[in-house]
Amino acid sequence: MYDVNEIRGDFPILSREVNGKPLVYLDNGASAQKPKVVIDAISRAYGEEYANVHRGLHYLSNLATEKYEGTRGIIAKFLGVKDEDEIVMNTGTTMGINTVAYGWAMPRMQAGDEIILSVMEHHANIVPWHFLRERQGVVIKWVDVDSTGYLDPQAVIDAITPNTKLIAITHLSNVLGTVVDVKTIVDAAHDKGVAVLVDGSQAAVHMPVNVDALGCDFYAITGHKLYGPSASGAIFMKKERMAEMEPFIGGGDMIREVHKDEITWNDPPMKFEAGTPGIVQQIGLGVALEYMMSLGMENIAAHEKKLRDYARTRLDGLNWLQVQGTTPDKAAIFSFTLDGAGHAHDISTILDKKGVAVRAGHHCAGPLMDHLGVTATCRASFGLYNTEEEVDVLVDALELAHDLFA
Amino acid sequence: MYDVNEIRGDFPILSREVNGKPLVYLDNGASAQKPKVVIDAISRAYGEEYANVHRGLHYLSNLATEKYEGTRGIIAKFLGVKDEDEIVMNTGTTMGINTVAYGWAMPRMQAGDEIILSVMEHHANIVPWHFLRERQGVVIKWVDVDSTGYLDPQAVIDAITPNTKLIAITHLSNVLGTVVDVKTIVDAAHDKGVAVLVDGSQAAVHMPVNVDALGCDFYAITGHKLYGPSASGAIFMKKERMAEMEPFIGGGDMIREVHKDEITWNDPPMKFEAGTPGIVQQIGLGVALEYMMSLGMENIAAHEKKLRDYARTRLDGLNWLQVQGTTPDKAAIFSFTLDGAGHAHDISTILDKKGVAVRAGHHCAGPLMDHLGVTATCRASFGLYNTEEEVDVLVDALELAHDLFA
Repeated sequence: MYDVNEIRGDFPILSREVNGKPLVYLDNGASAQKPKVVIDAISRAYGEEYANVHRGLHYLSNLATEKYEGTRGIIAKFLGVKDEDEIVMNTGTTMGINTVAYGWAMPRMQAGDEIILSVMEHHANIVPWHFLRERQGVVIKWVDVDSTGYLDPQAVIDAITPNTKLIAITHLSNVLGTVVDVKTIVDAAHDKGVAVLVDGSQAAVHMPVNVDALGCDFYAITGHKLYGPSASGAIFMKKERMAEMEPFIGGGDMIREVHKDEITWNDPPMKFEAGTPGIVQQIGLGVALEYMMSLGMENIAAHEKKLRDYARTRLDGLNWLQVQGTTPDKAAIFSFTLDGAGHAHDISTILDKKGVAVRAGHHCAGPLMDHLGVTATCRASFGLYNTEEEVDVLVDALELAHDLFA
Repeated sequence: MYDVNEIRGDFPILSREVNGKPLVYLDNGASAQKPKVVIDAISRAYGEEYANVHRGLHYLSNLATEKYEGTRGIIAKFLGVKDEDEIVMNTGTTMGINTVAYGWAMPRMQAGDEIILSVMEHHANIVPWHFLRERQGVVIKWVDVDSTGYLDPQAVIDAITPNTKLIAITHLSNVLGTVVDVKTIVDAAHDKGVAVLVDGSQAAVHMPVNVDALGCDFYAITGHKLYGPSASGAIFMKKERMAEMEPFIGGGDMIREVHKDEITWNDPPMKFEAGTPGIVQQIGLGVALEYMMSLGMENIAAHEKKLRDYARTRLDGLNWLQVQGTTPDKAAIFSFTLDGAGHAHDISTILDKKGVAVRAGHHCAGPLMDHLGVTATCRASFGLYNTEEEVDVLVDALELAHDLFA
């Protein structure tokens, strides 16, 4: 039984007020709040069990290493990955995708080689590929979404040419809420020898993900969106892809031996984890993922579907409000503009006065904003602790904003 | 008045036991413990004041942004840097040096160009330059230290040729404790148009540092060694060098505009801070640096000098123990081997049984190990909370180890 009120009690910040009103936190797409078990795990790690990992042999170093490395297995389990050595721990999706761009794509792509992106990619899944375009003459091919925000997997498959080396695609749009049929794309891409990177930064938060079943080559996640600490995260990289990769960040831990004239690399995944890692952040991420798994990803998804349906109905009742992204199976992420209203920033400021935290701006999705013909939207993005009552508070605040701007 | 016992009370972990003995934590060179103010700041940030930064306009986002950006000014003050826009926040020295290697060195260095390193550099200040050697034919020139561990600045200066583009050098050796006369090197290098990167990962922990006075082009620090959170850190980059640099990590925040066919960069320092940063880690780092400044860097240095002198005297009394690094003004970092003893790892294991945490291994300094003719040492590295009584516990434990191996 998914008791959202009990769950809310696990998150200390949700009981605070903002501008004299109870906090209604609908900015989960940007970052999620943290349960007390995560905050307590961080305090315990620093207050009782802290040392650097891997290189020490003393008690605290062994203890910290065990806890830190334990998270690798938790991430693998969370993502449905059998071999935890395919999990590289890092600071999030931005670092994960850059690792693939620098370590896998740059050394093997030539001028004229093609990378396929959807128009709704986040900047984290655009800028690293732009580097290859700017520096090496790689071509970026864009696939559009339709007016509902739906991405036809066949359109992605049809964009493949003999020059295509990589498809880099989101699993769930941070603006539209669109869920992408990654499995169909991966199957067709692999038939043609094309690798697929999936940006799972949003998807892994809202639905059960099984990376082994998807079959993709790379799958990136972001810890701070997964109710974990800031600067935590990981990327799944298939063993065969890892074997093809150059190291990216250079430093301690990722080497086996360093001499003046010769350096040898450590085995993956360590080869891709240079320097002292985010020890305590990753320990906290492990606790966050175990918290999510204890609630059950199916249950979280079911709860958010109910929220989505309720929010959709309520927002559809506002005939002066346009929601971007209307696919039936979308996630509970609502980007919208108001007829005749000022800038999205002004709307978010009014909502804030009512305690409602939403994001306003381009949501790190410039090409999608161009595609939609807007410069900015407001976005209300829901998480596992949100309620239908909070949808009502949002709608009341929107009506106030509409009245003020009308 | 520097009251070390009172200071110890600020660090929760120091009151714990290890293997039934009071913890004697002498592994500060690998990572330092955290004061309660830092741990509490992290809990508060997550429990009461958390949201993503920069991109939001709601109350919590503004609050988190203010606190996060506040750390930039604290770091600038801590390092004696006037313009806080010369501070790029990151996950530590490894990331800082890689940012310079990829963003500044790779785009401007040709085959045959030279980078000068000392033989006592940490792998974080070797591997990124090795990438340039391996991928672009850049030449690494090594400067040795003498038998005391002293690095003659003139030897570094003499290594400069018309092909030299960069000197990358530690300010304080993590193995020998040697303090390098960086100022003399910088002055001579700049006369010859050569840039200087300083690895301040150890120095900033143990002595007052004034980067503007040193005049170097880059100065990297590591938050987790500065009593701050894991995966926190920063690098100072001179404005003129920043202007010459390509972006390194691609993603959100480091761009101004992203369209399908065109991307423009944000201004520095943001240009070098891609994606959601380590929000809470940097907030914690700010608190850690303010804690250090409230004690006074001169006072910390004076305390550690007394510890160094006491430890030197006590260790000199053990005629079966060889300390590596004997310069008079060295930091309180003691690497050593035992006559006839087993591997350094065995010694550290015995010390651990007595509650004494030291590190054993190559200390991420392979070329220095080769230079010293050893494969590994034990290292006792002191911090602001260590005491002379702890030196005595270390010496007692070493005597036990000697007896066992004799």
